[in-house]
Amino acid sequence: MTTYATVSFLSDYGTADEFVGVVHSVIRQLAPATTVIDIGHHVAPHDVRGGGLTLARAAQYLAPGVVLAVVDPGVGTARRAVAVEVGDGESVFVGPDNGLLAPAVAMVGGATRAVELTDPRYQLAAPGPTFAGRDIFGPAAAHLCAGVAITALGPEVDTAGLIPATMPITRQEGDLLYAEVLWTDHYGNLQLNVDPAEIADHGDRVELRFDHRVRTGVRRRSYAEVSPGEIGLVVDSYGLVSIAVDRSSAAEELGIGTGDEVVLVPIADDGRPAGVVARVTMRNKP
Amino acid sequence: MTTYATVSFLSDYGTADEFVGVVHSVIRQLAPATTVIDIGHHVAPHDVRGGGLTLARAAQYLAPGVVLAVVDPGVGTARRAVAVEVGDGESVFVGPDNGLLAPAVAMVGGATRAVELTDPRYQLAAPGPTFAGRDIFGPAAAHLCAGVAITALGPEVDTAGLIPATMPITRQEGDLLYAEVLWTDHYGNLQLNVDPAEIADHGDRVELRFDHRVRTGVRRRSYAEVSPGEIGLVVDSYGLVSIAVDRSSAAEELGIGTGDEVVLVPIADDGRPAGVVARVTMRNKP
Amino acid sequence: MTTYATVSFLSDYGTADEFVGVVHSVIRQLAPATTVIDIGHHVAPHDVRGGGLTLARAAQYLAPGVVLAVVDPGVGTARRAVAVEVGDGESVFVGPDNGLLAPAVAMVGGATRAVELTDPRYQLAAPGPTFAGRDIFGPAAAHLCAGVAITALGPEVDTAGLIPATMPITRQEGDLLYAEVLWTDHYGNLQLNVDPAEIADHGDRVELRFDHRVRTGVRRRSYAEVSPGEIGLVVDSYGLVSIAVDRSSAAEELGIGTGDEVVLVPIADDGRPAGVVARVTMRNKP
Repeated sequence: MTTYATVSFLSDYGTADEFVGVVHSVIRQLAPATTVIDIGHHVAPHDVRGGGLTLARAAQYLAPGVVLAVVDPGVGTARRAVAVEVGDGESVFVGPDNGLLAPAVAMVGGATRAVELTDPRYQLAAPGPTFAGRDIFGPAAAHLCAGVAITALGPEVDTAGLIPATMPITRQEGDLLYAEVLWTDHYGNLQLNVDPAEIADHGDRVELRFDHRVRTGVRRRSYAEVSPGEIGLVVDSYGLVSIAVDRSSAAEELGIGTGDEVVLVPIADDGRPAGVVARVTMRNKP
Repeated sequence: MTTYATVSFLSDYGTADEFVGVVHSVIRQLAPATTVIDIGHHVAPHDVRGGGLTLARAAQYLAPGVVLAVVDPGVGTARRAVAVEVGDGESVFVGPDNGLLAPAVAMVGGATRAVELTDPRYQLAAPGPTFAGRDIFGPAAAHLCAGVAITALGPEVDTAGLIPATMPITRQEGDLLYAEVLWTDHYGNLQLNVDPAEIADHGDRVELRFDHRVRTGVRRRSYAEVSPGEIGLVVDSYGLVSIAVDRSSAAEELGIGTGDEVVLVPIADDGRPAGVVARVTMRNKP
Repeated sequence: MTTYATVSFLSDYGTADEFVGVVHSVIRQLAPATTVIDIGHHVAPHDVRGGGLTLARAAQYLAPGVVLAVVDPGVGTARRAVAVEVGDGESVFVGPDNGLLAPAVAMVGGATRAVELTDPRYQLAAPGPTFAGRDIFGPAAAHLCAGVAITALGPEVDTAGLIPATMPITRQEGDLLYAEVLWTDHYGNLQLNVDPAEIADHGDRVELRFDHRVRTGVRRRSYAEVSPGEIGLVVDSYGLVSIAVDRSSAAEELGIGTGDEVVLVPIADDGRPAGVVARVTMRNKP
């Protein structure tokens, strides 16, 4: 019998209402020895992609066990409720099958098994169909912790049929690297979907184009090394390129945020953006 | 000796300050084996009614044990601090006697015993009288978990003398059902104080009057089944009628919120509001 | 072997992102039996002084164990990461050496030993240097709970060389007591850096000067005893003089907040501010 000792819990429930506490309470009663760790509940309402990215950033640091994630605009419709096993049972992700779990599941090696949560014996009877965290997902997480086999929760489904995530990828056109802000963190740092290897051949200074403006970013080893007035490019704690300014919010200073496009252009030794040179050259060719 | 393993904690302390953490710390020291579950700390400051409704929504899902609730505009005055036993000791509600506990206590079957928290041996000595959660309520909750009898905390008081809650009830006048928004949740859904049975004889479409406007609500089984542009009437996860719009905030779209009046009027088969017809008929009678 | 069972955790991480949950998860894996209590994570970003005051207010109520505090604008620079022992090992404060820990350490009796957190065996390897709570401080806290000796975490440093806090102190000039708002709490109460003893010889009414305005404060035993329209002076739950208004926010009503100056002047029996009298007298002396 596999049991789990930890539930890591992410949602878009916010903390103004009692939703998070009620899910904790339900788990407490079904699996009293379980520790529930809140990964966060301030995913923007119904923002499946934002929730998926948050879960993916956290995934490799989570304790083995059950990961309970609920961002569920389709609650009460035909979207499936699922439990997705990873690492041959090292952990199980529980949540709606809407792409929310996919980035994190991929990050930790992919699904080894999945079931649809259909067995009412492992759910709470509810007056309405709208609070699946309390009535379906939370109970499933708790029963897994209490030793119920994942296959008891409902019929197995093909892991290849789970809804995938749609993650933005960068696009290289000549010298121009088209990127996107994946995440604006609490401090206003702007994480790009750019691996440092993608700009390894760029110099210390990189041209940044966004929102019809052009600025110069300077590579720095940490946020604190970014000088006042400077726009820093820092490899953040998740290993991605992030835009930061000195002890303030880059998002506010640059006026951009999650989902916005940023184009990175190498700056040539003569100080002129290499990209512009390249483009002009190409355009002038007959 | 009755002991409790769980404290469920609700307050209006917010999370900007250290209040919630300090109460956890006090409980941790007096009853180290206790698990504290945060039901929520974002009740509007001093909003006894809102806190009482939140606690009532959560009540039936809480783990048996101690329920610690602090929304306490009268802290430091003559208002009593109380512990209210329910279910012959299955759980104990601890908080101010100002109506905050009343709806939840009623929801789980009513008080079977109550004491006033007066014994200083079960309180912390404090430099000022203003942080009762830390100095009086938290310690009482912890001592109950550690096995102190409720009757040791202070003299028994008549449960019939506890301050009741004042809950808004609907009012039927002819075909018009006068209701009130009880709660605006994190997603902007508007919970009414209307039991589905009260509109069981209405059709699928119900006229809604609020703030000098008239709109048509359509009954739907879940939030997700509400179509774009439509105003849905959904039985929410607490079994009450709730107003919702498609993946957005009904509160923002309709411009109403908690405490506002909504009048529900049946719509006749000919599409005209039955209520209006009835009123006109009555008015024209000599 | 000294072990600790509780980590009390304060930061400026906010709760919009997964930072807090990830630190919990890291501790959970390194020291599974540890209970983590969140003191709060809404210190203003990079506000070392505000974080230090929050920790100091909480300090005497925290469970013995590890106190993990992260407000760290210098992350990734040469600022030291430290563990500071107090009470000969009763508790250990873990965080950046930037003055954040100093007020709380002083509050509980001062440092008895300190080490710099340098041993990579007790840290997580990280893709970037920017998330020290996850990679350095959290692991140090967890290893201390798991029984690792503080001296194993890195070389001892002179406790006298730890960065001190800079706390504002009051200034008495004639009858005028120059004070400062230390903290604006969730309810809008304004805590001053004034000990009640400093105004013990003042009457029941005290003149308050701030922001080019003059108002009269009235001493009250609790917030609830402050009458409508009145400005109350209450000894708060930390033993300091606090400005409060009736069931509303003093900060909003007076238009001042943390860091602002307030001058307290005794009011003479004839109702005129004694301070003004004194100043006029002194000014007129040849």
